[in-house]
Amino acid sequence: MKTEANIPYKFYLEESELPTAWYNVRADMKNKPAPLLNPGTLKPMTAKELDGVFCDELVQQELDDTTAYIPIPDEIREYYRMYRPSPLCRAYRLEEALGTPAKIYYKFEGNNTSGSHKLNSAIAQAYYAKKQGLKGVTTETGAGQWGTALSMACSYFGLDCKVYMVKVSYEQKPFRREVMRTYGASVTPSPSMTTNVGRKILAEHPDTTGSLGCAISEAVEVATSTPGYRYVLGSVLNQVLLHQSVIGLETKTALDKLGVKPDIIIGCAGGGSNLGGLISPFMGEKLRGEADYRFIAVEPASCPSFTRGKFVYDFCDTGMVCPLAKMYTLGSGFIPSPNHAGGLRYHGMSSILSQLYHDGLMEATSVEQTSVFEAAEQFARIEGILPAPESSHAIRVAIDEALKRKETGEAKTIVFGLTGTGYFDMVAYEKFHDGKMTDCIPTDADLQKGFDGIPHFPGNE
Amino acid sequence: MKTEANIPYKFYLEESELPTAWYNVRADMKNKPAPLLNPGTLKPMTAKELDGVFCDELVQQELDDTTAYIPIPDEIREYYRMYRPSPLCRAYRLEEALGTPAKIYYKFEGNNTSGSHKLNSAIAQAYYAKKQGLKGVTTETGAGQWGTALSMACSYFGLDCKVYMVKVSYEQKPFRREVMRTYGASVTPSPSMTTNVGRKILAEHPDTTGSLGCAISEAVEVATSTPGYRYVLGSVLNQVLLHQSVIGLETKTALDKLGVKPDIIIGCAGGGSNLGGLISPFMGEKLRGEADYRFIAVEPASCPSFTRGKFVYDFCDTGMVCPLAKMYTLGSGFIPSPNHAGGLRYHGMSSILSQLYHDGLMEATSVEQTSVFEAAEQFARIEGILPAPESSHAIRVAIDEALKRKETGEAKTIVFGLTGTGYFDMVAYEKFHDGKMTDCIPTDADLQKGFDGIPHFPGNE
Repeated sequence: MKTEANIPYKFYLEESELPTAWYNVRADMKNKPAPLLNPGTLKPMTAKELDGVFCDELVQQELDDTTAYIPIPDEIREYYRMYRPSPLCRAYRLEEALGTPAKIYYKFEGNNTSGSHKLNSAIAQAYYAKKQGLKGVTTETGAGQWGTALSMACSYFGLDCKVYMVKVSYEQKPFRREVMRTYGASVTPSPSMTTNVGRKILAEHPDTTGSLGCAISEAVEVATSTPGYRYVLGSVLNQVLLHQSVIGLETKTALDKLGVKPDIIIGCAGGGSNLGGLISPFMGEKLRGEADYRFIAVEPASCPSFTRGKFVYDFCDTGMVCPLAKMYTLGSGFIPSPNHAGGLRYHGMSSILSQLYHDGLMEATSVEQTSVFEAAEQFARIEGILPAPESSHAIRVAIDEALKRKETGEAKTIVFGLTGTGYFDMVAYEKFHDGKMTDCIPTDADLQKGFDGIPHFPGNE
Repeated sequence: MKTEANIPYKFYLEESELPTAWYNVRADMKNKPAPLLNPGTLKPMTAKELDGVFCDELVQQELDDTTAYIPIPDEIREYYRMYRPSPLCRAYRLEEALGTPAKIYYKFEGNNTSGSHKLNSAIAQAYYAKKQGLKGVTTETGAGQWGTALSMACSYFGLDCKVYMVKVSYEQKPFRREVMRTYGASVTPSPSMTTNVGRKILAEHPDTTGSLGCAISEAVEVATSTPGYRYVLGSVLNQVLLHQSVIGLETKTALDKLGVKPDIIIGCAGGGSNLGGLISPFMGEKLRGEADYRFIAVEPASCPSFTRGKFVYDFCDTGMVCPLAKMYTLGSGFIPSPNHAGGLRYHGMSSILSQLYHDGLMEATSVEQTSVFEAAEQFARIEGILPAPESSHAIRVAIDEALKRKETGEAKTIVFGLTGTGYFDMVAYEKFHDGKMTDCIPTDADLQKGFDGIPHFPGNE
């Protein structure tokens, strides 16, 4: 195996090198992401309006688009030390197997029990909820990574945790549910009969397999109607991208220490938490004119918000109880095919990333499910790590980009986010092995149904 | 959180600090472990006799009880670098939660896709098989950790891998099977109709849930009757303890660098691979009179070979096709209750550890399943890592020892082996959460049935 003397397979920063502040990329954006709107008045949501839904300090973080660095409280850094800094890995074996001149790195966020990067924001959000004296939090989860991460964080801080889990995932992933129970969370399949919005959706669509948008509505309803509770969300929001900037900050510090400058940075994109976190500090350099990078968002062809969605104000949830967000969206009524495995099934996209994409500062591409699992299995066999389906979207494109370099002979440096492990996704792997996996790409007519639910008002098209 | 300035939560050695040689504790034992016997002649097995079952170089390692350090081939060290050195963790949060003056460390072997320490020997055994020009290997697996590790190692080296999986585990753990398939292995529930010994056992016991001893017989039969194949085993054997010494060597280097001397070293014990690997270098110091430590083997009350077994020559497998080994054994016909979760279900114990225990150089204790899962859940909630049921046996006793220090006020240093993660054991966790877990302790009459199968010959009692 040909390796570079100063670059190990896995590069760990010291715990003392953990970032002391999150980086808020909005501070460096000329075109700020559009504000959340009150769906009744169509005016920007105020802190006061958001306080009933989110914790006070998280509302401040949500609205702050000018402070570049926001200190990470010591207690959060203490919890980060239980599983961070995460390793920056050099894919020597993958490079050799592909025969590419490209150098491939990945930031591996899967070495914690939640199995993904989601824990970075879960710990922050649980900390602020506890600090505010709350009793508990509610949330939704799709594939289960976020719910697991939040249940762990709530267990650390002694908070109650109520998770609404998309019904199709609840049924396909009983073990995810059991991990959440291990950490003391209660898990309810969504839509459920425990909320008004759930009962309404079930009355209209008794056979629905659920969606993230629907589970969000239920979790928000419970949070806003239960004293001492607030709602927390694992992606999409500005505050989440802020917390996840710890991924990019560590990656940048590690690359700087190794003397490596990446050319292409690749991340999978569902709501944008991993991608936004990974690219933030690099995007900051690009926005400030200090460096240039190619950023590639990879989304599933079965839920293609960047590549086939509209950049408009839309509801964040199916029940339309949340504020409106300006984002690339497939419409809040869009539900990806139940054959679509894993996460990355949200109808919209982070407002920050949407704006950056709209401004031509990053690229986006979509990949089909079967080719994603081919890349996943190839990666598992060569690099040893069994990747989550979500992460494997980034692997697919990293491999494709590396193979292109083989043709051109360019020794480009590729960095991608390996967000998590696939130990709870073996049903999907089984389908793939048995040749029963399909690509489930929505037709234009399918998409039109989703677009029809986007609110109409002047300027929103 | 009160932490010591020079001791992080997770201490990683550099990849360059990976051991360059395995340590063979037999070299320092005054009373060597008894040799394997040919069951026909009752004479020690020769290298020539073992060659048909095991790879040539592994036979040498199996028989060598004088060479203290055996170099680790560079290619094996390259593969170790994909997931090693593993972290030595300080359980600051657990210490605080228990209010103990004890200092608790654990060597965490679960951060690789096989989910346990088993990969350390799998890579070595697959390497030697490949080097010898073999086509493939056969093995058995119980809970599935070893089968997963071997399938990964075979995928690295391009070897065929046939796994016989204890039927009860095969049915309870379909996802383990799927991980093995991801790495290209074939997995057969045991006993099966694919071997003579399987057909014989099924004819006699059509409802059997299988056992490790039975799966071993099938795997050995296939290996010895298929050209280009050999049998490999994930525990019990001297060669396996040799490979697993990498755990103890790293632990010792890390503790030395931190300036820490342990008082008590604790490991779970099924066949002995983890415990033997963890304690070997420390036991070497004890044998040479350079230092003293307490060693505690922890076994399940449902399969108590050390604490209720006999120290005699016995068959290693149910089909009686393997050599006889002198060890603490419950009899090759002993099958733990199907209610017993996870691994640690082998009827015997490593000959090395058996001799050390017999000579009073280490202690053993057994713990009941429900108290093991209580410790597992407590550990998960406090330390964040969801432990495997096997590893949780060590956690149980580490917690108990730490609580004893609370009474005496002694600031003893405890090190235990956290061998793996429990992501594929959620059925057992579910039983525990639902109050459906039992302790399934064998009666004396149950044990007598196993003892009745121990071979009778002069001196063997």
